[in-house]
Amino acid sequence: MDDNNARSPSTPPHVVILGGGFGGLAAARGLADTEARITLIDRRNHHLFQPLLYQVATAGLSAPSIAAPLRQILRKQTNVTVLMDEALEVDLARRRVRLVSGELGYDALIVATGATHAYFGHDEWEAHAPGLKTLDDAFTVRRRVLLAFERAEREDDPARRQQWLNFVVVGGGATGVELAGTLAELARHTLPREFRRADPRQANVLLVEAGPRLLPAFDTDLSEKARRQLHKLGVDIRLNTAVTAIDSNGVMLGDTPYTARTVLWAAGVAASPLGRVLGAPVDRAGRVLVRPDLSLPGHPEVFVIGDLASVTQESGQLVPGVAPAAKQMGRYVADVLRAGWRGTPLTRPFRYRDDGVLATIGRMAAVAQFGRLKLSGLLAWWVWLLAHVTFLIGFRNRLVVLLDWGWSYWTYQRHARIVTGSDTPSRAPQPLPDDE
Amino acid sequence: MDDNNARSPSTPPHVVILGGGFGGLAAARGLADTEARITLIDRRNHHLFQPLLYQVATAGLSAPSIAAPLRQILRKQTNVTVLMDEALEVDLARRRVRLVSGELGYDALIVATGATHAYFGHDEWEAHAPGLKTLDDAFTVRRRVLLAFERAEREDDPARRQQWLNFVVVGGGATGVELAGTLAELARHTLPREFRRADPRQANVLLVEAGPRLLPAFDTDLSEKARRQLHKLGVDIRLNTAVTAIDSNGVMLGDTPYTARTVLWAAGVAASPLGRVLGAPVDRAGRVLVRPDLSLPGHPEVFVIGDLASVTQESGQLVPGVAPAAKQMGRYVADVLRAGWRGTPLTRPFRYRDDGVLATIGRMAAVAQFGRLKLSGLLAWWVWLLAHVTFLIGFRNRLVVLLDWGWSYWTYQRHARIVTGSDTPSRAPQPLPDDE
Repeated sequence: MDDNNARSPSTPPHVVILGGGFGGLAAARGLADTEARITLIDRRNHHLFQPLLYQVATAGLSAPSIAAPLRQILRKQTNVTVLMDEALEVDLARRRVRLVSGELGYDALIVATGATHAYFGHDEWEAHAPGLKTLDDAFTVRRRVLLAFERAEREDDPARRQQWLNFVVVGGGATGVELAGTLAELARHTLPREFRRADPRQANVLLVEAGPRLLPAFDTDLSEKARRQLHKLGVDIRLNTAVTAIDSNGVMLGDTPYTARTVLWAAGVAASPLGRVLGAPVDRAGRVLVRPDLSLPGHPEVFVIGDLASVTQESGQLVPGVAPAAKQMGRYVADVLRAGWRGTPLTRPFRYRDDGVLATIGRMAAVAQFGRLKLSGLLAWWVWLLAHVTFLIGFRNRLVVLLDWGWSYWTYQRHARIVTGSDTPSRAPQPLPDDE
Repeated sequence: MDDNNARSPSTPPHVVILGGGFGGLAAARGLADTEARITLIDRRNHHLFQPLLYQVATAGLSAPSIAAPLRQILRKQTNVTVLMDEALEVDLARRRVRLVSGELGYDALIVATGATHAYFGHDEWEAHAPGLKTLDDAFTVRRRVLLAFERAEREDDPARRQQWLNFVVVGGGATGVELAGTLAELARHTLPREFRRADPRQANVLLVEAGPRLLPAFDTDLSEKARRQLHKLGVDIRLNTAVTAIDSNGVMLGDTPYTARTVLWAAGVAASPLGRVLGAPVDRAGRVLVRPDLSLPGHPEVFVIGDLASVTQESGQLVPGVAPAAKQMGRYVADVLRAGWRGTPLTRPFRYRDDGVLATIGRMAAVAQFGRLKLSGLLAWWVWLLAHVTFLIGFRNRLVVLLDWGWSYWTYQRHARIVTGSDTPSRAPQPLPDDE
């Protein structure tokens, strides 16, 4: 790896960006019209449109519809070099990042490695309750869900068959609500005609939330509307209910066991471990407590953005871990860097502009909140659809996703119901139940 | 699992079909208008359009475009039960199949479990040279190919970089020709603008064939035309060249080493191991030597069809292992069974009708042979495209594949360039080179 550390005043600055999610990509693009040399590092070769990941997990979309190679996205921005690699350490004093393939010096560093799902200290739950952060996670969820119906069809014993038709989704945020709603539709509308022995309509989808309401990022009246819409879809919602154990037989809801062969995790996230490597204070979830300009305390040349950053707004609330916030941070840091190079440092701190929140619940049902404007039902669903298709990267993806959705809504089919793979390489090994 | 063995004259016959490929599916559909109860067993949940598998392997199509759930394809045929399971043994005397999940009796059995790639006794080559039979195989090939370019971009040493840009395809049949042509296009047209340090145009694609010509299923003049078209695409073709060793550094071509970090296998197939379980004579490739009506010698109620059957035509030639032959066999066996149930046994033996052969070479280049009619170049390519889209299952798939191809031809992009997974669960473990 080249040594890019020795910078004379005439050399253009070298910016290293760790992570090609919404934040990292926005930062790279924000520096397009500068002289900077940019190196963007990601462990994966693709940018992922995470808000639609649950659609891959529930077989509505294929993976390439919501993911695009980072180097393809950035191919026209000639000041960016994309490297598929992983950052292991940051030497803040020497301004160098240690990668798997070598070392890389930087003049400015933007850390945007995001978050992953977390099990509140119960890592052993992961084998039984896969989370949803990467495409490989989505394939695991898809495989588990589709195989559960296949196993039910093979099973003669009615009690054991029902265990394969019981699904538990842990966590009542947007991902949990979207997963539970889509699962219920899959069981009620997509699959029934295709099975001869098991009846997919006998499936139970249980959505468990420890707090008092669904979608805590929304106002309470919208939470209640979401609950009612989900209930209408056939989802069994358990609020104020803590999951105290998960194993291959199902979950413990407080002291009550609930038998289910498929448990999906949508409850907790933790910041990327790279946050702790930076030596700065972190919050309980591992997010880095950054300064108002998103830089690391004592290191104005290092920035942390996106889900990895803990930023408190003037209202006292944390900036939420959502895609628009990450994008805004990426653009802001690009502005800070550019202003610094020009010799006119930016003095305004980062301010999060809340563009509203959206969550879809199922077929033609969603909730949306833009400041005081609140929508639910069909209208919210149309807004949700337009917003998500608009922000998808690439004309082709937009067209294909619209086509897939149109097709799904006409036929109730989900075209990506393909089981591949037999284990999950993305994180810890996750054995499939029993004889799989 | 139910015991379906005790059949009274009034009970409709129970037909068990092992394998949901072209042959098994054609047999099931051929029995649609009968009273028979049909159970179709497959290890996978989907039917795969194998002729386009190389497109998934080279990132041109997403997996759901060429695969559809078996139970979705057969959902309207109510006399079929689809089970995702695997046949381990056949008890011919008791007319029972032993599955992973239990036993199943049959009145008639159709074995259509196909073929897989084979390494001529060198199973250790598989880890270094993945073959192409399943979707998981295609993901492995796609990951290896895309990661090779990523590794080249990370590599500073020119010699080591070139090793990542050297690709070897072993086998000059249709799959080998298609893979080599598409790889050359990927390197020359799709990727160049996206890399900053490595130049994908420096990639070498070597196509190695032990025999004297490419595409032995075609006439010699078309083999020569294919060779010239491939050469024009930049593929380095080595005929009469035997691969004598494969390891992580590359291949031995006779006594000459050729260093390449990516080797793909398109050379040999062997019949499914289930053929040997049936106790009938098999040929060297493990194919079952069936009677003229495709039944097992001594067992008129058991049929072997598709790539697993060794059927000699009147000309003395074997029926080739291609999709149209498997479909014709499936339909023929359905006719045999129906005639038998009616009490008017079919006396004509199976006859293969050669509908012609087609192979694509690259952008707007192909060869086609229909009896005495031979085509090559652009016209052959259009015929190839129409034929493949016509035989794809499902209206949606046809539309999406056409859209993807149209998009690829306009933009030179390949939309499915997504690296997922980190090992290959489908067959033997296949470690990725070095520190991956």
